[in-house]
Amino acid sequence: MNVRKLLENVAAGNVSVEQAVLELKKEPFEDLGFAKPDYHRAIRQGIAEVIYGEGKTQKQIKEIVEKFMENGQKNVLITRMKKEAAKFVSEKLTDRGIPFQYEPLSRIGIAGEIPEADGLGEIAVVTGGTSDMPVAEEAALTAEALGNQVVRIYDVGVAGLHRLLSHAQTLMEAKVVIAIAGMEGALASVVGGLVECPVIAVPTSVGYGAAFEGLSALLSMLNSCASGVSVVNIDNGFGAGYMASLINHIS
Amino acid sequence: MNVRKLLENVAAGNVSVEQAVLELKKEPFEDLGFAKPDYHRAIRQGIAEVIYGEGKTQKQIKEIVEKFMENGQKNVLITRMKKEAAKFVSEKLTDRGIPFQYEPLSRIGIAGEIPEADGLGEIAVVTGGTSDMPVAEEAALTAEALGNQVVRIYDVGVAGLHRLLSHAQTLMEAKVVIAIAGMEGALASVVGGLVECPVIAVPTSVGYGAAFEGLSALLSMLNSCASGVSVVNIDNGFGAGYMASLINHIS
Amino acid sequence: MNVRKLLENVAAGNVSVEQAVLELKKEPFEDLGFAKPDYHRAIRQGIAEVIYGEGKTQKQIKEIVEKFMENGQKNVLITRMKKEAAKFVSEKLTDRGIPFQYEPLSRIGIAGEIPEADGLGEIAVVTGGTSDMPVAEEAALTAEALGNQVVRIYDVGVAGLHRLLSHAQTLMEAKVVIAIAGMEGALASVVGGLVECPVIAVPTSVGYGAAFEGLSALLSMLNSCASGVSVVNIDNGFGAGYMASLINHIS
Amino acid sequence: MNVRKLLENVAAGNVSVEQAVLELKKEPFEDLGFAKPDYHRAIRQGIAEVIYGEGKTQKQIKEIVEKFMENGQKNVLITRMKKEAAKFVSEKLTDRGIPFQYEPLSRIGIAGEIPEADGLGEIAVVTGGTSDMPVAEEAALTAEALGNQVVRIYDVGVAGLHRLLSHAQTLMEAKVVIAIAGMEGALASVVGGLVECPVIAVPTSVGYGAAFEGLSALLSMLNSCASGVSVVNIDNGFGAGYMASLINHIS
Amino acid sequence: MNVRKLLENVAAGNVSVEQAVLELKKEPFEDLGFAKPDYHRAIRQGIAEVIYGEGKTQKQIKEIVEKFMENGQKNVLITRMKKEAAKFVSEKLTDRGIPFQYEPLSRIGIAGEIPEADGLGEIAVVTGGTSDMPVAEEAALTAEALGNQVVRIYDVGVAGLHRLLSHAQTLMEAKVVIAIAGMEGALASVVGGLVECPVIAVPTSVGYGAAFEGLSALLSMLNSCASGVSVVNIDNGFGAGYMASLINHIS
Amino acid sequence: MNVRKLLENVAAGNVSVEQAVLELKKEPFEDLGFAKPDYHRAIRQGIAEVIYGEGKTQKQIKEIVEKFMENGQKNVLITRMKKEAAKFVSEKLTDRGIPFQYEPLSRIGIAGEIPEADGLGEIAVVTGGTSDMPVAEEAALTAEALGNQVVRIYDVGVAGLHRLLSHAQTLMEAKVVIAIAGMEGALASVVGGLVECPVIAVPTSVGYGAAFEGLSALLSMLNSCASGVSVVNIDNGFGAGYMASLINHIS
Amino acid sequence: MNVRKLLENVAAGNVSVEQAVLELKKEPFEDLGFAKPDYHRAIRQGIAEVIYGEGKTQKQIKEIVEKFMENGQKNVLITRMKKEAAKFVSEKLTDRGIPFQYEPLSRIGIAGEIPEADGLGEIAVVTGGTSDMPVAEEAALTAEALGNQVVRIYDVGVAGLHRLLSHAQTLMEAKVVIAIAGMEGALASVVGGLVECPVIAVPTSVGYGAAFEGLSALLSMLNSCASGVSVVNIDNGFGAGYMASLINHIS
Amino acid sequence: MNVRKLLENVAAGNVSVEQAVLELKKEPFEDLGFAKPDYHRAIRQGIAEVIYGEGKTQKQIKEIVEKFMENGQKNVLITRMKKEAAKFVSEKLTDRGIPFQYEPLSRIGIAGEIPEADGLGEIAVVTGGTSDMPVAEEAALTAEALGNQVVRIYDVGVAGLHRLLSHAQTLMEAKVVIAIAGMEGALASVVGGLVECPVIAVPTSVGYGAAFEGLSALLSMLNSCASGVSVVNIDNGFGAGYMASLINHIS
Repeated sequence: MNVRKLLENVAAGNVSVEQAVLELKKEPFEDLGFAKPDYHRAIRQGIAEVIYGEGKTQKQIKEIVEKFMENGQKNVLITRMKKEAAKFVSEKLTDRGIPFQYEPLSRIGIAGEIPEADGLGEIAVVTGGTSDMPVAEEAALTAEALGNQVVRIYDVGVAGLHRLLSHAQTLMEAKVVIAIAGMEGALASVVGGLVECPVIAVPTSVGYGAAFEGLSALLSMLNSCASGVSVVNIDNGFGAGYMASLINHIS
Repeated sequence: MNVRKLLENVAAGNVSVEQAVLELKKEPFEDLGFAKPDYHRAIRQGIAEVIYGEGKTQKQIKEIVEKFMENGQKNVLITRMKKEAAKFVSEKLTDRGIPFQYEPLSRIGIAGEIPEADGLGEIAVVTGGTSDMPVAEEAALTAEALGNQVVRIYDVGVAGLHRLLSHAQTLMEAKVVIAIAGMEGALASVVGGLVECPVIAVPTSVGYGAAFEGLSALLSMLNSCASGVSVVNIDNGFGAGYMASLINHIS
Repeated sequence: MNVRKLLENVAAGNVSVEQAVLELKKEPFEDLGFAKPDYHRAIRQGIAEVIYGEGKTQKQIKEIVEKFMENGQKNVLITRMKKEAAKFVSEKLTDRGIPFQYEPLSRIGIAGEIPEADGLGEIAVVTGGTSDMPVAEEAALTAEALGNQVVRIYDVGVAGLHRLLSHAQTLMEAKVVIAIAGMEGALASVVGGLVECPVIAVPTSVGYGAAFEGLSALLSMLNSCASGVSVVNIDNGFGAGYMASLINHIS
Repeated sequence: MNVRKLLENVAAGNVSVEQAVLELKKEPFEDLGFAKPDYHRAIRQGIAEVIYGEGKTQKQIKEIVEKFMENGQKNVLITRMKKEAAKFVSEKLTDRGIPFQYEPLSRIGIAGEIPEADGLGEIAVVTGGTSDMPVAEEAALTAEALGNQVVRIYDVGVAGLHRLLSHAQTLMEAKVVIAIAGMEGALASVVGGLVECPVIAVPTSVGYGAAFEGLSALLSMLNSCASGVSVVNIDNGFGAGYMASLINHIS
Repeated sequence: MNVRKLLENVAAGNVSVEQAVLELKKEPFEDLGFAKPDYHRAIRQGIAEVIYGEGKTQKQIKEIVEKFMENGQKNVLITRMKKEAAKFVSEKLTDRGIPFQYEPLSRIGIAGEIPEADGLGEIAVVTGGTSDMPVAEEAALTAEALGNQVVRIYDVGVAGLHRLLSHAQTLMEAKVVIAIAGMEGALASVVGGLVECPVIAVPTSVGYGAAFEGLSALLSMLNSCASGVSVVNIDNGFGAGYMASLINHIS
Repeated sequence: MNVRKLLENVAAGNVSVEQAVLELKKEPFEDLGFAKPDYHRAIRQGIAEVIYGEGKTQKQIKEIVEKFMENGQKNVLITRMKKEAAKFVSEKLTDRGIPFQYEPLSRIGIAGEIPEADGLGEIAVVTGGTSDMPVAEEAALTAEALGNQVVRIYDVGVAGLHRLLSHAQTLMEAKVVIAIAGMEGALASVVGGLVECPVIAVPTSVGYGAAFEGLSALLSMLNSCASGVSVVNIDNGFGAGYMASLINHIS
Repeated sequence: MNVRKLLENVAAGNVSVEQAVLELKKEPFEDLGFAKPDYHRAIRQGIAEVIYGEGKTQKQIKEIVEKFMENGQKNVLITRMKKEAAKFVSEKLTDRGIPFQYEPLSRIGIAGEIPEADGLGEIAVVTGGTSDMPVAEEAALTAEALGNQVVRIYDVGVAGLHRLLSHAQTLMEAKVVIAIAGMEGALASVVGGLVECPVIAVPTSVGYGAAFEGLSALLSMLNSCASGVSVVNIDNGFGAGYMASLINHIS
Repeated sequence: MNVRKLLENVAAGNVSVEQAVLELKKEPFEDLGFAKPDYHRAIRQGIAEVIYGEGKTQKQIKEIVEKFMENGQKNVLITRMKKEAAKFVSEKLTDRGIPFQYEPLSRIGIAGEIPEADGLGEIAVVTGGTSDMPVAEEAALTAEALGNQVVRIYDVGVAGLHRLLSHAQTLMEAKVVIAIAGMEGALASVVGGLVECPVIAVPTSVGYGAAFEGLSALLSMLNSCASGVSVVNIDNGFGAGYMASLINHIS
């Protein structure tokens, strides 16, 4: 569209050829030196901007968040954020009147207001064990920050089927299910066989020995004999929450 | 609901305790000796039944198809079907007036009529190279058999970005994109960065040497730096088509 | 005991020191040149002798079987036996009045009479899919050849839980369960959570892509979150049947 | 059985349809928020409840133990329990008059009285080296907590066969043998060739370099040329002790 | 050449046979006990000597640097140098009037003057993310220390193609491009498709889960569907900078 | 440039806005249905077009070659070409007066005239053993087809250093060296230590057992202790030849 | 020595500088085009020349053998030789009066006379099973061709210790033991614990499933808890025989 | 021999049958509770006893050493010994007049006197780099403690061949060479091609990225194209020193 308008201006003589060439090259981002935040992305991809906190200093995170906010972003999600960085960012944002919350288990920080849930229905986040909770909360909070209603069903591993089956009703009513498990990762297949909706499977690095840091669960989930299951990276709660939100907002 | 009705009948004396116990145990399938087809699944999971053809004899496939048809299934998808099995099943079904079609590249057989496309929008199937076509057609035909409009964009690998970018419009209008690539599997990330809809990534075993039968593409796709990408098993075109159809039929 | 008797004879002067040294060194087997069958093993380990057919010529198999029979073995189990070898051995043994049967799917041959089942109870052999049947039959026939009652429950993969649950009664009554599955191998965990008896898990090489020839199922089963599950090698139906028989004959 | 009684009550008018529906849905567990302990499991699976201590806070462990105790569980086994958690739980339970013991090498905690040994015979726990002792004690204490007589034979690796052979008598009299080894894991095969009873093999992460954190021993044990050997996860002493106990209590 | 001169001297009687034999054996290095620096290498391989700092003490590094300097080397590059070692070496060299600089992110130390850039053109160093900067700086500083003009283009991962494409001009004008990325490593293929010059790809260990410490990016880059891409070890910024410099100095 | 001209025409009223939008979208390739050849690539990337023959039918190869030729390409390289495809393509091209040659060991086909060597100097192709020759010839013929002088030095593995050292002069005079080896792949390091020019290392799948289809050589080469070595995929002779040619044509 | 003589001749004026330079460069081998046989190697490495038959044509093998023979080699060992090549070479050599023998199981061919055994003592070749015989014979015949007395002890796997122990005397008297086993490869450790001499362990690809083509046995042997064990490549009988011969000929 | 004497005593009536049975069972070791030292091993395997220090407490090490010394062992080698344990053991032994020395780089402790070198010749210990020294010293000190003359040649990696070749004379005169290298491990092949004696190759975990903790060097060495090379575990300097000593003491 912009291209068309630009051309119309060129045709009308309002914009010179030189300016148009320049305009076509001008990039929708500003260079902070260490990262190139993309202020148009909220429009281009439709949802809140996300910062991957791992390997970024607290100062870098703060600056990127502020730049986003200044460019009109209503909320920013920060994943894998360390406690100290959260404290630092929280103070800085509060000074400027921007709300900020941090959940230490999942290491998720959210700047700005969490939006109203406006998806098609509920996203169910299911885990095999208690130890999968950090990943599960990363998924759940991501989905909530992107405007979804989330229902949490934790510690319902397949070795005690009745625990899972007692939630069958809730699972079957969800629009998307996020199935999170370590060790043998069988939860994805069992859930995949129960529900009619898409299942996003998240292998976790929970386990020891031949769990090989999540490899066992990853392979299990990729080989699921249930249809309608796709997989994200080991411990990638964010990725699952994001994908689930995309699906839950389809129109 | 059925349980409630059953209990009401027990309470009303219309059904004896013995009969009720039996009823609660009666299974929604019939035992053919070598497999337990599940006639209720079309209802429970909402779509056509699928037979994984690998490792089944042509006679077994024929019998399962017929059982499904007798139980009211309108169409049956057979994946990984050998040419000979297709010929055998085709003859048997034609004798009974049931249409059957077979596509040799993808080894997909479809018994019964392909339904009208009734999804939310189009599913785009994109491949990195020509050699990914068998997997791509498995995905595309699966999606079509499950009632979806499919647009095919083949051989648009990332080493020649302009080939992919010339289809940007089509990609951005799709409700779901299936990104299929072997070798380094970078297509998923690039497509994932372009579109706003969910991307189902399918690594293929195309390549040699350090492609390690699809492992390279699989790892690439699992580690995609683009959000909104989830992954199915290597060469699992069916799984991607099925997942995409689930998403495209969400309501 | 023999050592004590030997020493008593030495003390009594009935056996010379030289003879005793020799006797202590005499081995309970005879050298056929290509293998050292162990005729005492039936006594030492309590059950029928087994020949691993892979990589042995039909003539070698025949000779080892005959040696066993001549040494008083009542039945001999041959695993991974090729059709041609079975035909050859069958003819040779029939000439000598020894019964021989061969089951081609599992490639199991049994020379001599199958003994009466004399175990503590039933062994249940359960599979995730139809394609796991060759391994399952290897397990089942092994167990039967070793004197066990076997009940077969095939194609009850976890993606359709109701199929498995309809056999819950049978499973719960078994003394040992052999759970056999490829792909994600989740069957072992689900069965392990249902039953009170030991579960022997057998990963199979069924699957493709990230199933990595059975590695996925193997890792899954080793990481089972259910207690009471132990694992044998990929496709090792024999090993599972043998182990189950040992357990079922404990006293 | 309960279902039948319930239905009889429905038929007799003693229980309303609504109540019966509710009853059929009521789950045999209580929700603590972070975990769903299963009080019926002692009955369903026949032995003491076990808590996997890894990744649980001391407060969580304490609460689950107490809930179990309140629901009639006589003893509770906690595996992979940290020293501090043990101290905390010990104090809390002692206050309530419940005995608690902790063994730091194996990190096993046991709440309640250790039951009398009531198995069929002895379980022998054998290790290749001194460094395998933590895993061995986890196995031994688990078996003891589940009512078994255990005999320990440590540091009898196959590089000094005479050390192992001097215990041959004890090994041959055991009902189950647990063979624990790291490095090349050859112990399982050698022990498997000596005894007539089931052998549960436990690979350990003892070793360096190409031991690859237990992978070498794991593969060795899975490929054991001795029959009657099955394998649990690397360092999974608990799993082996549990499995051995199941076998030793078969009837 | 030296050999020829030596022989001429032997022929002329200026050098005895014994001396010539000795001379032919005399090595172009001096033994420091812990390492054998090679003072001729600057001539033999054409560029500055490099010390791999990992696993060397600060005293060892200092001594090797000094030996090089004494033997006429104008600058010495030290890679993977710890902060403390840098401080120590800096003090010692400053005492002797030798300039020394240290860049902590890349852990690169440079003794002596950085030479004028005398290559054919520019080397572009491109990264997928901010976290790849330590590796990128190792590459860039190495190239600069070896006499190259370097242009840095960071955080232009393929999930936001416009960020990369806005630098297309710069990339296309470079003589060599070093493409550095972790996770899925797709940057190498996309860059490889854009430029006409050689691309040196550096996989980094950035990422988590199935990134497997850089394995995913490594495999991706090895399987690049773009021609003109070759790969160095994971995180080997130095190797890429060195290789790029060799290419940029070809004549 | 084209964009500027287009804009000038828009400004001049010679081209309508609609046409300009269309033009900006028009792609520099033509759709053959199964592949999207890129006729501008010879210009954009500077060298002859290459067809990866694996997985393409002979008819597909023929058509792509012809399209290239029709679009002004002077020569086309086809890699991994089967003998039958070569025969078919040869006949078809000969009918149209286009020269075609095929080398069966390397499975390289070349349509059109091989250009004059116009590189900076020689490319040396070195192999460890005789069995590496197919890969070496793929590299050598690729380089020749792209306009390079190639010198072949085969079977000079490091276990007989004198064989390699006798070619030291030739190696040291080359502008680029391609070092090709299977098994332990040590050739790359030894050559890398000898020469001052860039070394492209190609691991081959030659070997057995722990060579793991080229993995051993690949890892060796990636870990080369010699500077100035970069690596391409296992058996990727083409990739090495292409990269070497790029370097040899730098200006 | 030659160098000294050469220099003396240069000093004496008998050899010109030019000639001497040339002489220093002249290589002790002749170029056959496809391979560079090394006629001095018998002297340099002390034993018969060996041809690795894999991937060489029968004509190539024949020519290399003849060249060796013409250069004074008394016998030549060819490993991994195909039956047809053996037939071809046998005919050609017989025509020239050179004895040739071929053993099909191990695929070893020997041209020339097998030398008298002149080692320090016996080499014992021990295998775990019958299927390891091809590798064992490759080891045994190699050792015999290199002048060693070999004693074969086959099928004495560790699952039946008495079979191995009955050969303890022979094993303890050997100068070197070659321990060959697939599957779990435990034989190396048990033998290593029994004998005082060096043990060369050869893992074989015998086995299935988690044997992973010999990986399991390889890792086992590398991790042997017995001292005095070193390992060669999977299925590398030749390597073990050669190494054992070197040891057995030490002086 | 002992058995024969025992039997003679039984025959002579000097030893009762009961005593003889007991004697045959009495083991040549004493039970310390945590380990079973084997006092006869020095005789059975011919050299000093070795304690693997990893995972043993300082008190355990002290007690085992003392027991050995009390049983007549003249020296005891302790590998992987921590500094603190060395200090503790040193004090205790000094109190009892037993010499003890500890070398911190290799973590080797030696109790008792180091014996005179009495082997056939020298053992050469060669390393690729400075960082391989800890492993090299473990090998060298082990060999010295077992009565061997050792010559150390460190930091002669193949990237600078002249460094290695300048030691060719020393290498060629050794009876055994221990070649130690990390990264690409090429040293073993190059050394193996130079010398006529057995080469024991030790891969080290030196390196980063695709060195994969020594896997790269391990695979390289197993695939060595040089004959006469066998391999021990990653970083297993002790194993190499022990093996080399066995070879150097053959008679």
